[in-house]
Amino acid sequence: MDYTPALERLVKLLSRMPGIGEKSAARLAFFILRADESYARDLAAAVEAVKTETRFCSTCFALTESDPCPLCRDPRRDNRILCVVEEASDLLAIERSHGFSGRYHVLQGAISPLDGRGPEQLRIKELLARLSGGEVEEVVLATNPSVEGEATALYLARLIKPLGIKVTRIARGIPVGGTLEYADQVTVGRAIEGRGDM
Amino acid sequence: MDYTPALERLVKLLSRMPGIGEKSAARLAFFILRADESYARDLAAAVEAVKTETRFCSTCFALTESDPCPLCRDPRRDNRILCVVEEASDLLAIERSHGFSGRYHVLQGAISPLDGRGPEQLRIKELLARLSGGEVEEVVLATNPSVEGEATALYLARLIKPLGIKVTRIARGIPVGGTLEYADQVTVGRAIEGRGDM
Repeated sequence: MDYTPALERLVKLLSRMPGIGEKSAARLAFFILRADESYARDLAAAVEAVKTETRFCSTCFALTESDPCPLCRDPRRDNRILCVVEEASDLLAIERSHGFSGRYHVLQGAISPLDGRGPEQLRIKELLARLSGGEVEEVVLATNPSVEGEATALYLARLIKPLGIKVTRIARGIPVGGTLEYADQVTVGRAIEGRGDM
Repeated sequence: MDYTPALERLVKLLSRMPGIGEKSAARLAFFILRADESYARDLAAAVEAVKTETRFCSTCFALTESDPCPLCRDPRRDNRILCVVEEASDLLAIERSHGFSGRYHVLQGAISPLDGRGPEQLRIKELLARLSGGEVEEVVLATNPSVEGEATALYLARLIKPLGIKVTRIARGIPVGGTLEYADQVTVGRAIEGRGDM
């Protein structure tokens, strides 16, 4: 005997999620099965709704339920500084830090030839269109400090600098609360290279 | 700015699952969001279906889509030996081992006073009703070797032995492929205690 067909289908779908193997998927499926009726119904509805109710802002390409998104509509944000991120989740991480008050642009990915993702798959055309408005004075490249993110940042810097716009890159170094001892050598190298006056 | 309401709802529901914290829930939610339309639709349907299409066998209380379940209907299984497990997932684990050809009884939990689960919350009444049929000659207690599982096994043994039925307990010891060095001391103790002739 095996799982029931319904259970099997759920396990198969759940195990396609990142970080969820077949055993975890089975645990999650059994949890859903044992949870009260309303949980399964709410979860099913939420899974559907997230696709149907969420779309991308036509200005910054962040996730939103209204277009333009609340951030693009907010008159208190600084139009002169634009922060470029890979994903909407990165934008949320920066917003949570309360360290940035300008506008955003979500690339919806990073350049990654191995995954068949070139610059034309990203929202770079739209970024350049926004910059041509002439209002932006600084572009902060906040792509991840990964191989793909660095490559994307380099690519964008080369495109944007000739427009006479200042291009900056987020700092890479030892995370706050981290230790030099356990940081990898590339991070330590970056931390030294990017040292600042005290 | 925060997640969109739809996204927030999904993250909250996902993070109630076992082993899924808020960060993993967000990663899963973004995965669902980015996956193609059909994935979200299929997943939502599967989540609903697992609740509506799956029920418990009225004989052994395993998960099934038909009642009695295929295992209880199977004429080739041995009626004289009954294996008692905590959950339907344990039954599947034993079936996968191909080491048992009798019938099963799923308790749907273990005795756990801390979680407010006493014997009356388990399918013990139904177990005793099955045993009163007089056909069963041996009950294999295959509850987990955890505090709750052991307590449940002890409790059941005391109930069943007076009926003149043989009661056995699954072996506890060093897992196959494991090493004495890394096994915990209780397991090593059990392995010594339960040693058998060669």
